[in-house]
Amino acid sequence: MKAGETGMKINHNYLMLQDSYLFSRVGKMVSAYKEANPNAEVISLGIGDVTLPLAPVVVAAMQRAVQEMGMAETFRGYGQEQGYDFLRQAVCNYYAAKGVELEISEVFISDGAKSDLGNILDILSTDNTVLIPDPVYPVYVDTNIMAGRRILFVNGNTENNFLPLPDPNIKADIIYLCSPNNPTGAVYNKNQLKSWVDYALAQEAIILFDSAYEIFVRDPELPTSIYQIEGAKECAIEFCSLSKTAGFTGTRCGYTVVPHSLVRENVSLNKLWLRRQTTKFNGVAYIVQRGAEAVFTPEGLSQIKDNIHYYLENARIIADTLTELGVWFTGGINSPYIWLKCPNNMTSWEFFDFLLNNYQIVGTPGVGFGTNGEGFFRLTAFGNRANVLKAMERLRNLQI
Amino acid sequence: MKAGETGMKINHNYLMLQDSYLFSRVGKMVSAYKEANPNAEVISLGIGDVTLPLAPVVVAAMQRAVQEMGMAETFRGYGQEQGYDFLRQAVCNYYAAKGVELEISEVFISDGAKSDLGNILDILSTDNTVLIPDPVYPVYVDTNIMAGRRILFVNGNTENNFLPLPDPNIKADIIYLCSPNNPTGAVYNKNQLKSWVDYALAQEAIILFDSAYEIFVRDPELPTSIYQIEGAKECAIEFCSLSKTAGFTGTRCGYTVVPHSLVRENVSLNKLWLRRQTTKFNGVAYIVQRGAEAVFTPEGLSQIKDNIHYYLENARIIADTLTELGVWFTGGINSPYIWLKCPNNMTSWEFFDFLLNNYQIVGTPGVGFGTNGEGFFRLTAFGNRANVLKAMERLRNLQI
Repeated sequence: MKAGETGMKINHNYLMLQDSYLFSRVGKMVSAYKEANPNAEVISLGIGDVTLPLAPVVVAAMQRAVQEMGMAETFRGYGQEQGYDFLRQAVCNYYAAKGVELEISEVFISDGAKSDLGNILDILSTDNTVLIPDPVYPVYVDTNIMAGRRILFVNGNTENNFLPLPDPNIKADIIYLCSPNNPTGAVYNKNQLKSWVDYALAQEAIILFDSAYEIFVRDPELPTSIYQIEGAKECAIEFCSLSKTAGFTGTRCGYTVVPHSLVRENVSLNKLWLRRQTTKFNGVAYIVQRGAEAVFTPEGLSQIKDNIHYYLENARIIADTLTELGVWFTGGINSPYIWLKCPNNMTSWEFFDFLLNNYQIVGTPGVGFGTNGEGFFRLTAFGNRANVLKAMERLRNLQI
Repeated sequence: MKAGETGMKINHNYLMLQDSYLFSRVGKMVSAYKEANPNAEVISLGIGDVTLPLAPVVVAAMQRAVQEMGMAETFRGYGQEQGYDFLRQAVCNYYAAKGVELEISEVFISDGAKSDLGNILDILSTDNTVLIPDPVYPVYVDTNIMAGRRILFVNGNTENNFLPLPDPNIKADIIYLCSPNNPTGAVYNKNQLKSWVDYALAQEAIILFDSAYEIFVRDPELPTSIYQIEGAKECAIEFCSLSKTAGFTGTRCGYTVVPHSLVRENVSLNKLWLRRQTTKFNGVAYIVQRGAEAVFTPEGLSQIKDNIHYYLENARIIADTLTELGVWFTGGINSPYIWLKCPNNMTSWEFFDFLLNNYQIVGTPGVGFGTNGEGFFRLTAFGNRANVLKAMERLRNLQI
């Protein structure tokens, strides 16, 4: 048969994707530098991964669970796809402590926010317009290109402190918000989030609220869940993760909240998501769910907060140094990310080269997160304290 | 704004789904029977879940891995989405022992076949015709209804021993095969699989080959991978799982093979799947991957095979009893499933009631797996040996 006329067709939207090059390009340039300068002590302030180990109570809980799985009397087979009730209840209790009342059936245990942020799109028509902030975590854009949706961007910049607000003249159906933000570390206050909730309600749109960094918020006035905003249960799905919260980047657990009040075209999105997950997912490992349960105990919360404080202290050290140097930045206070304006009008990659070659420091060029990231740069606070101090010592010599 | 004209639209294909009722209906009827007959000893031969615990080497490997995750020096954060190379290599070695040579980059570690069988559809156009056997595992049908694809069925029946072969007059783009089969336990031989491979190559279609039960095949002449058939690398994706193989139903690990030779419209499906997974998935837990690695060691393979032999002996006991009774069945020899024709022309649900009320035995009505399942019934071999023997003792009194 003639090629192209018959036979299985691929999803042609995938041909519209840009090759994701940001972190691999960073990796290649760092490797090349290290090869050319074998004695250089390169410090990375670019990683978006945790470095501190799992909390002791989490380790203990998982050891017990592994042991249970080795004995017939306590062995567990398939769990319900939306997660064990012991963990869903723990999540509800965590929300109650923030003043948000949820039913267990509104909580879905996930293997991480990345999976659910991608897969939620299954239950939404491809005939929706998506509104995404720029700069942004690239996954929001790519998952919608894959589905062929129309994408509009809303601009973050120094004027709005990278906290864009809704424009009532722009029509959108699916709105992505991430607060505290990756990559900027900026955090919306309650009024700002309310303006987005009001906009979504007026548009009959939905907000996909990425709450992966909520645990870093220290300012008691700032929201730590979209549901602390009135009306949010009628328009928002919240995606949370234990990745940064509890060091689960390699252990994989999170939770997604789909309120029963979230109805569109007379259909419950909670019911759709349950159907999607019971058909295309088989739940998170029992062992991992027991580890996650331990995170939410008083002891667990105390242990993970020690780690969060460690990262936030790193962030403070970086933020204070930038302040001394007179570099514009946002983030670093209620977030592990610092988003700075490259000095001397350098582009993102020029500043990357400048930092690597002159100070042996690695960060992430902001342009990799969108066109509004050009001329900006992301530093992260997940590294080792000694390295952070050393890097900041080097930067104090920065000639700008 | 007027309802329905504007605002976020759901995926309307979800409204075409039938409420999945099979196992919940079975559950309700069993609960009702137990309530009405509190002294009855109900034996379930209906579960599709394992009952034997994880192998000792798997438990030991996961204990070590949990311990590593609790110490900074050995802690692991994000792993690559397609899985750690130590596990991908173990999978390649497992295939090599079957005479199939694979490259590591053709192996993708999954959190189970159910997830990957659903998510693989992301990279395939919705404008493809799907060919699905009837009876069948309902997920194949539902995931395609969700995507709005056209579905054709190919008939399994007693005439073809529930091993349907391709009809060259039927055009299809995506073909589902499951062998050893759920629910029928039937196993294709090499010639039969070759006819499907040849058909797929002629159609430029692809085969989604569900190999979840391959470990149960004892007959050395029968294939245990589609890639043992010449030409399969150019037309098939194989989905494997440790769920039944190693008791991982609650631990979640499998592997999906996408050969580099699998190209459609000049695009590598391996490249598309890698892009999908790196965008919408964050890998399987490190702890679980170490457990999976232990499965593939000589000790691990020996320990899991003890469990497989236990289940297969249960199957033999069931199969022998049905033979004594003169009941037509398939499966039970190279599979943990037995698919029998209901005696006395009973319908599937009539036979369900008959077994439950008269013999306190629970099975699964075949009609729940498709129209060709009407008048048939599935029994499974995953239960406890004593219960299987007891149930078969009861059945020897069967008046048919």
